Parts: sequence; structure tokens; C-alpha cells
Amino acid sequence: MSRSSLLTGVAVALAAGAVLASTPPGLATEGPAGARAVLAAQVEAWNRGDLEGYMAGYWRSPDLVFFSNGQETRGWQATLDRYRARYQGAGKQMGKLDFPAMDVVTLGPDAALARGRWRLKMPDGKELTGMTTVVLRKRPEGWRIVHDHSSADVG
Amino acid sequence: MSRSSLLTGVAVALAAGAVLASTPPGLATEGPAGARAVLAAQVEAWNRGDLEGYMAGYWRSPDLVFFSNGQETRGWQATLDRYRARYQGAGKQMGKLDFPAMDVVTLGPDAALARGRWRLKMPDGKELTGMTTVVLRKRPEGWRIVHDHSSADVG
Repeated sequence: MSRSSLLTGVAVALAAGAVLASTPPGLATEGPAGARAVLAAQVEAWNRGDLEGYMAGYWRSPDLVFFSNGQETRGWQATLDRYRARYQGAGKQMGKLDFPAMDVVTLGPDAALARGRWRLKMPDGKELTGMTTVVLRKRPEGWRIVHDHSSADVG
Repeated sequence: MSRSSLLTGVAVALAAGAVLASTPPGLATEGPAGARAVLAAQVEAWNRGDLEGYMAGYWRSPDLVFFSNGQETRGWQATLDRYRARYQGAGKQMGKLDFPAMDVVTLGPDAALARGRWRLKMPDGKELTGMTTVVLRKRPEGWRIVHDHSSADVG
């Protein structure tokens, strides 16, 4: 093999390697960090009563999916409307939200799973709690929740 | 560039291309097909009263996570025990399971999301229903559910 062919081969291999190697670091850290940042910003927004700020963590799309116990809501606007009805209607309170031990798992270069308990401390001292599962995707605008399944023991 | 260097470059580029190109078809079809096959096998097993067969769709690991309304169960064995207590205890029935419109989404080369409504028709004619979100990963043994969040309106 000539020197130039070696160099060409090495250059192509390096370029290919760079493409391949560009994935694992993102896989290992970017998804969880991106997901955690979205959730932290949501908690902050919720706790200052800013429902639109909270909704900024969701994919602004008619294809956003939100499951709650036995109900399905489709689309960003319908999800916002549902939150408004439940937490901003007459006599309703948003309370203080936290996720005490959120587990974040990478699912691929542009996908992450976050799961754990949600807690809402209401002004009257009552605590609501349940489980949440959210799937986030890296969109051009940043990491966004594309699917939310949140539930609670009710009744 | 010599003919040999061109050939070397082309061969390396083709090899790199083959590696890169091996992902998209899997992304597009393998995850959803693998996920659907797991869920179809679970429905069949459930409907012949075979809880162990149903459980074969889950990752056999202490790290399997199962959320139900406000409760978290960790591990394959604990998940089986929970199903046994709820559906195979004295006077309990498994009923007939179906997922009328399961939506399956690829999340990466080895990850998929399946979501939709679950329905259980009980022998007394009562129908239980709710929403389910499952995340599947491609394991050495095949596609398996690694996270299940299933909920229902109760009370």
C-alpha cells in the first residue's frame, strides 16, 4: 500500500470513527442532563404559579401525549387546558411540586426516560402524591417531554 | 490518488457506511415490530391464564420497574408476586386482556415506547380499563419491557 493510500485510509477511518464516536458521550450524559434540566425548570415554574412556564417543558405539538390514571389527553394545548382546569379553576391551588427521587435513564442519542414519585404539598397541608413516567426527546428547540404518564391513588 | 488508495478509501467508506446504514432500518421497523410481538405474546399468555408466560415479556431483572397508580414495584419477582396477588388469589379472576389501539414509537436503536389503553373484560361482564405506558429495550434475550406504568380510574 502506498503512503498516500495509507493516509487516505487512515483519514477516512478517522472520519468514520469520529462519526461513530460522537454518539456514546451524548448517550451517557447529555440525555439525563437535558432531561433533569427540563424537569428542574418545570418544578421552578410550577412553584411560582407559572403554568405556561411549566408547559414550556412539553413538546409544543398536537402529538404530545398525556396519560393520567384512566384518561388520555392529546396535544400541547389540550394538556395546558387540562392543567388549567385542575389547578387554576375557581378555588383551585397549584401547591408546591417536587420529585423527591427522579430516576433518569438514557434510551438513545435523542431519547431519555425519567420516572419517579411526584408530590404536591397543598396550602391546607394535604399532600397529593403518585408516580410519573416521562419520555423526553431532543428536539431542535431542546429536550422536551413528548409523553407523560402521571397517576395517583384516588378514591 | 493511486487506484489502490482510491479502492482503500472506497472500501473503508463503504464499511463505515455499512455500519452507519445498519441503524436506520432497525430504527424504523425493528423496535416497533419487536415491541408489538412482545405485547401480542403477553396478551395471548394472559388470556390462557398463563401468568408466567405473560411475565416472559418483562426484563427478568431486579431493575425492572412497575408503576401502578400511586405505587412503585421494583424487580421481576416482585412484579410477578403483585400480579399473582391481584389476579390469582382466592376468588380472583384474570379476565380477558386487550390493547385496542397500541401506539408504538421507536426511541433509538434498542429502545421503543408502547402506549395506549388496556382493557380487561371480567367473567361477570364488568370491564376494567385504563392507560399503559411501557418502555422496551433490546436485550441479548430479545425485546423486553424494562419499565411499565399502568393506571386506572379507581374509587
